[in-house]
Amino acid sequence: MEQYKKSVRSYIQAHQLQGVRLLKRLVQEKSVSGNESSAQAIVIEKLRELGLQLDIWEPSFRELERHPYFVSPRSSFLDSPNVVAVLKGSGRGRSLILNGHIDVVPEGDEQQWKYHPYKGDVEGNRLYGRGATDMKGGSTSLIMALEAIIACGIRLKGDICFQSVIEEESGGAGSLAAIIRGYKADGVLIPEPTNMKIFPKQQGSLWFRLTVKGQSAHGGTRYEGVSAIEKSIIVIEHVRRLENIRNERIQEPLYQSIPIPVPINIGRMTGGNWPSSVPDLLVLEGRYGVAPDEKLAEATQEFENWFRKLCEADAWFLEHPVEIEWFGARWVPGSLAEEHPLAQTLKQNFTLVRGEEPIIEASPWGTDGGLFTNIANIPTIVFGPGETKAAHQHDEYIEIDKMVEAAEMIACMLLDWCGVEE
Amino acid sequence: MEQYKKSVRSYIQAHQLQGVRLLKRLVQEKSVSGNESSAQAIVIEKLRELGLQLDIWEPSFRELERHPYFVSPRSSFLDSPNVVAVLKGSGRGRSLILNGHIDVVPEGDEQQWKYHPYKGDVEGNRLYGRGATDMKGGSTSLIMALEAIIACGIRLKGDICFQSVIEEESGGAGSLAAIIRGYKADGVLIPEPTNMKIFPKQQGSLWFRLTVKGQSAHGGTRYEGVSAIEKSIIVIEHVRRLENIRNERIQEPLYQSIPIPVPINIGRMTGGNWPSSVPDLLVLEGRYGVAPDEKLAEATQEFENWFRKLCEADAWFLEHPVEIEWFGARWVPGSLAEEHPLAQTLKQNFTLVRGEEPIIEASPWGTDGGLFTNIANIPTIVFGPGETKAAHQHDEYIEIDKMVEAAEMIACMLLDWCGVEE
Repeated sequence: MEQYKKSVRSYIQAHQLQGVRLLKRLVQEKSVSGNESSAQAIVIEKLRELGLQLDIWEPSFRELERHPYFVSPRSSFLDSPNVVAVLKGSGRGRSLILNGHIDVVPEGDEQQWKYHPYKGDVEGNRLYGRGATDMKGGSTSLIMALEAIIACGIRLKGDICFQSVIEEESGGAGSLAAIIRGYKADGVLIPEPTNMKIFPKQQGSLWFRLTVKGQSAHGGTRYEGVSAIEKSIIVIEHVRRLENIRNERIQEPLYQSIPIPVPINIGRMTGGNWPSSVPDLLVLEGRYGVAPDEKLAEATQEFENWFRKLCEADAWFLEHPVEIEWFGARWVPGSLAEEHPLAQTLKQNFTLVRGEEPIIEASPWGTDGGLFTNIANIPTIVFGPGETKAAHQHDEYIEIDKMVEAAEMIACMLLDWCGVEE
Repeated sequence: MEQYKKSVRSYIQAHQLQGVRLLKRLVQEKSVSGNESSAQAIVIEKLRELGLQLDIWEPSFRELERHPYFVSPRSSFLDSPNVVAVLKGSGRGRSLILNGHIDVVPEGDEQQWKYHPYKGDVEGNRLYGRGATDMKGGSTSLIMALEAIIACGIRLKGDICFQSVIEEESGGAGSLAAIIRGYKADGVLIPEPTNMKIFPKQQGSLWFRLTVKGQSAHGGTRYEGVSAIEKSIIVIEHVRRLENIRNERIQEPLYQSIPIPVPINIGRMTGGNWPSSVPDLLVLEGRYGVAPDEKLAEATQEFENWFRKLCEADAWFLEHPVEIEWFGARWVPGSLAEEHPLAQTLKQNFTLVRGEEPIIEASPWGTDGGLFTNIANIPTIVFGPGETKAAHQHDEYIEIDKMVEAAEMIACMLLDWCGVEE
């Protein structure tokens, strides 16, 4: 086994330039939601080169929308294919799904980018561009690991199922489609940008919308009205108290070093329509973090119950209750015991390559892992080379040596997990 | 003089139905900004009937925009005429400008109206519709007073200059144009909806825009960012403290019964663009009340200086100062001594008609009066029959008997002020 691991690691090190080139090509395709096909074409071309058996399909919106875990801002997935490639083993080992999403979030205000978001500029150890870290760099590590095993002529016992899915950034419709299509395995690895930390547990999240009412009046007699902005400040404080309560009770050791394990973030605030009028309506939108071991339904119930207590803070809310709506995206939380063989196998190979122990933490955000854990009942681990802080930011980048190192770790882990046919 | 007053009052009482009919026709013309000409046509027709000398002109945007007091959201006043009619006196008395604006604010959400906003339905003592109270009802009182004097064959010593102007609701470009055109007098009366109170002093106001900065981060790690919403709450509290300071020092007896004489109203709040992101920018828009005896420049300076102290509340603002912008509309404050003959003459005739003393207060909002006081140096008084609270609201209405009563008071006041040629 040691010899096999040496071979794949040497192969990966010798071919890192090809890996960078692949990532650069992937970054150059602006695969925002609805525009994934040209990036998927590059993945397909590469997987064909490796001689893999391919399954390419456009998920059926009509089929998916009946599923209780389905969320999507879209109304069709035409021209947005999922890609799955299977490397068949001899059949006597454990199988693993390697899952990476091809979609990226929009680049935002281009003025704020120093580097072009879709050129894939390389400077020193960094490759810049939208998706470099989240998560085309992680997917490239997967492909480099796969290629090394194939190129070294190693025959695995278990199957490897590589998935390049759409729609992770909007709630996971692509991975859900792959699950519904029947793909199963003994484990899933998702190389989201964990900055080389191992996340056996992933936070879930949901989006909420709060509508806060006031009463209009002319601004010159503002005391005759009730400002929805001032009432919203009370609502925000109320949300903050719930966040405290929910986080204080979290005992999870993996969250020990995290200031707020499951935050409630208010991301948007919009209200009022005239500077000289007292605003009578305000809308707050935010993200509600759900602990890895929590059920979504319990979490939303707690939120809704908490809002029934809002009138204790201000009697105004008795007759003008805040409207609560769960909308848009939703990520299911996921959880794997740290002692699970999947986590242990990854951990050992991390230590082998790096020469030091990995950091084990729980993720501060949702991933498609929750779907695999909760719907497909497959143990899932999240680990990838991307820089966490660079995700969704301008001048997103990945450190190339980490991408290569992750490829080595994943390749070695695959040998252990799936087993090698001598 | 008593006899003259009796005659005009009898005439007005005998012709109140005609007054209601005129108001109804005016309300039926939707004279929102840019669409004033058909309502002005009705005014013109009526003034021609009275045999008055007319001046009808479209204000020149190019000429106006050079004026330091000019503000307007428009770029042209084509097809938006001002109308001025002069009733010449014998030349030996005091003259008076009677100024009413023809423009109305939009009806807003029509669903909230029980009455049609542009039908002018009459029910009992009320006439409903946009502009009924603000201020086509007041302008109708002016015309009824004028008509009574003419019809009774009374010859005045001083001139009466009736003005039906555009653009009051957007900051007074119509009245500014009339001032620039050279119309002058010994006093101005503006029948804004004061609910039969006399306002010798009028509050001014300006619109401000505050841009508050934060620092973006993923909502799952919101502790790595700085929420522009949370910083905005500090900004709002800071604004509230300034409002306290400014209002505590107001000694003006006319504001004694007003909870907040010169409010600072935050009317709009918009920020953030993604529920799962920490918002890095938030914009607040509001209205800054300016006391009748205050200079606009001093008031804005105080506001700007106050914001320099914001970093004492939170060091964040040292490197991320709030941007302050004065934009859109602006109303100049106005002030007349309560003892001024213009106020006294109105007061006496109020008491004559009503049999009780009027309430004297300072206005909670700006009017075109500030322009007449500050630019043309003409003493100005604001007094009208409209229901203050109904202005800018759905189901706006005026009480017909007040409109008639105001016409009687104004007619009697004109006789005293201008003097009657025996």
